[in-house]
Amino acid sequence: WRRQAALAAAREDEEEKQLRQRFMAPPVSGLRELRRRRRELRSRMELLIMETQAEGCRALAALDPGASFSVDSWERKEGGGGISCVLQDGEVFEKAGVNVSVVSGLLSEEAARQMRSRGKSLEAKDGKLPFCAMGVSSVIHPKNPHVPTMHFNYRYFEIEEADGTKQWWFGGGTDLTPTYLNEEDAVHFHKTLKEACDKHDLKLYPKYKKWCDDYFYIKHRGERRGIGGIFFDDMDSPSKEEVFQFVKSCAKAVVPCYIPIVKKHCHDSFTPEEKLWQQLRRGRYVEFNLVYDRGTKFGLLTPGSRIESILMSLPLTARWEYMHTPPESSKEAEILEVLRNPKDWVH
Amino acid sequence: WRRQAALAAAREDEEEKQLRQRFMAPPVSGLRELRRRRRELRSRMELLIMETQAEGCRALAALDPGASFSVDSWERKEGGGGISCVLQDGEVFEKAGVNVSVVSGLLSEEAARQMRSRGKSLEAKDGKLPFCAMGVSSVIHPKNPHVPTMHFNYRYFEIEEADGTKQWWFGGGTDLTPTYLNEEDAVHFHKTLKEACDKHDLKLYPKYKKWCDDYFYIKHRGERRGIGGIFFDDMDSPSKEEVFQFVKSCAKAVVPCYIPIVKKHCHDSFTPEEKLWQQLRRGRYVEFNLVYDRGTKFGLLTPGSRIESILMSLPLTARWEYMHTPPESSKEAEILEVLRNPKDWVH
Repeated sequence: WRRQAALAAAREDEEEKQLRQRFMAPPVSGLRELRRRRRELRSRMELLIMETQAEGCRALAALDPGASFSVDSWERKEGGGGISCVLQDGEVFEKAGVNVSVVSGLLSEEAARQMRSRGKSLEAKDGKLPFCAMGVSSVIHPKNPHVPTMHFNYRYFEIEEADGTKQWWFGGGTDLTPTYLNEEDAVHFHKTLKEACDKHDLKLYPKYKKWCDDYFYIKHRGERRGIGGIFFDDMDSPSKEEVFQFVKSCAKAVVPCYIPIVKKHCHDSFTPEEKLWQQLRRGRYVEFNLVYDRGTKFGLLTPGSRIESILMSLPLTARWEYMHTPPESSKEAEILEVLRNPKDWVH
Repeated sequence: WRRQAALAAAREDEEEKQLRQRFMAPPVSGLRELRRRRRELRSRMELLIMETQAEGCRALAALDPGASFSVDSWERKEGGGGISCVLQDGEVFEKAGVNVSVVSGLLSEEAARQMRSRGKSLEAKDGKLPFCAMGVSSVIHPKNPHVPTMHFNYRYFEIEEADGTKQWWFGGGTDLTPTYLNEEDAVHFHKTLKEACDKHDLKLYPKYKKWCDDYFYIKHRGERRGIGGIFFDDMDSPSKEEVFQFVKSCAKAVVPCYIPIVKKHCHDSFTPEEKLWQQLRRGRYVEFNLVYDRGTKFGLLTPGSRIESILMSLPLTARWEYMHTPPESSKEAEILEVLRNPKDWVH
């Protein structure tokens, strides 16, 4: 019996060592704790977001060998913490961030309501609700105007009500913001996401594609931020396990939907005018993120949140010109048309 | 009698010609209409904002002879319109805009409440309130990092209640956002504003200086946008005439408080590092304007507002670096200290 226990312990040590090497930093909850409660969904989700972060960072770093990710582990005094990985001013990427955060604590009923896009009523004990929120979030701004910006985010929430019942839900999405339209890339991107969705339910891709077009709408411009992808929130059916498997498929699709596009275009030549147009589009990206994005707004208003990690999503540089209008039938007008009237890319 | 009338008409024509030459474009309400109701405060205010726009544009254009203002008159289909004057990519100024708007129409009770910083209750007839809002608004972003950004805005509102009584109030302010601290400039700027205030009431400058420091606070950064100036809203006492005279003094102080600073520094030499720091500060300017500024938020949410004129306040270029912290005791740290802990510049 003693030998068996020793063997098991050695095996666990080995597993832990491998995990530690695989991740960008030790997980917020600690490997031992995650192993202790390995069957719980929040442990499996924390491992998934850590893995997604590491896979993303490795794929990006491989394309930009001169640059490297700075890795910051941070703690939140109210509970939990995170790991921010940022690559700045590389050869291929202007700014690329992949963040993990795992936070917990007590929410007011009001704050809890705001966390869900459809406001469900929650019964709090003494006005406070224990919660746990975790996610991986990333924005990649490449230098070359022929390589699109990409964003993804996968997250999981748990809130405990007064009677001890737990509400839980998942949210997430992956979307693309090109400076110029490349139809082949758009189709590849959407198709890869559709395949990930279709494995679980054929209704998911059309529903979440539309949600994405609706969510990333810059109302005062009458434009979407980009050419979309998928977006969902408040997902809590058919079952915790099935939703987790769906989120896992989406997270695993991040590298294959985006990296081939970067590889294909990162050495494309471009003109100063194309770079200028990219900078103007970056300005719109800033407008969406600061004026509309729910995650950013929630972060800026939450005491104790890590501002540098939230605003990592902003591009390194952006530009605003008064009354800039691209000439008719130009490549600039072509992308604007798609941002104003979203297209169906895979049917 | 006929000869006298002819003489008066000729004199009025001459006056109108002079006004037309003095302004950047014909006033929104029309010169004839303004002359017809010349005793009404809203006519006098419209002439004041037109004059302030023209004086500002002329003073700026004189410092940047190669560049010129583009002048756009626009109409609002719901009532009124405006004149936007923008100089872009000059020798001295990166982007300088001076806008006038004079709009009128019907407000919902909710929108009317939001227009005042302290929510007064308003009695509407059939839920709608006739209103008139006018103002001059300007943001000047110079190229040289040793020349500060300047913003001013002077505005007047009228709302008619169900029983025909009119609520009215003025708002406004002028504030400075330097990239580097120059104490002499800060003192000159604040002193000029204080003198304008002191002519009316010695209590005004200290009160509005503090309001300015409080208003331009970027909460998520723990910094103010700049080194302040004056800011006020909801000003409706001691009397319409006296508040108008105060606003006039402030508007007349815009050129003398700022232009000498531009003249003094627009040929200062600067390093690429100083330019970089300016770009990072521009990023903070964007954060304030898009996340907190009441005027910008109100504008983005108001149907029919002219987005290009509202977002003219954004700099031509801006930058966001992850985790940028200037070294201790550097010139960059010096300005940050003042933005975190506002100073008293004139006592």
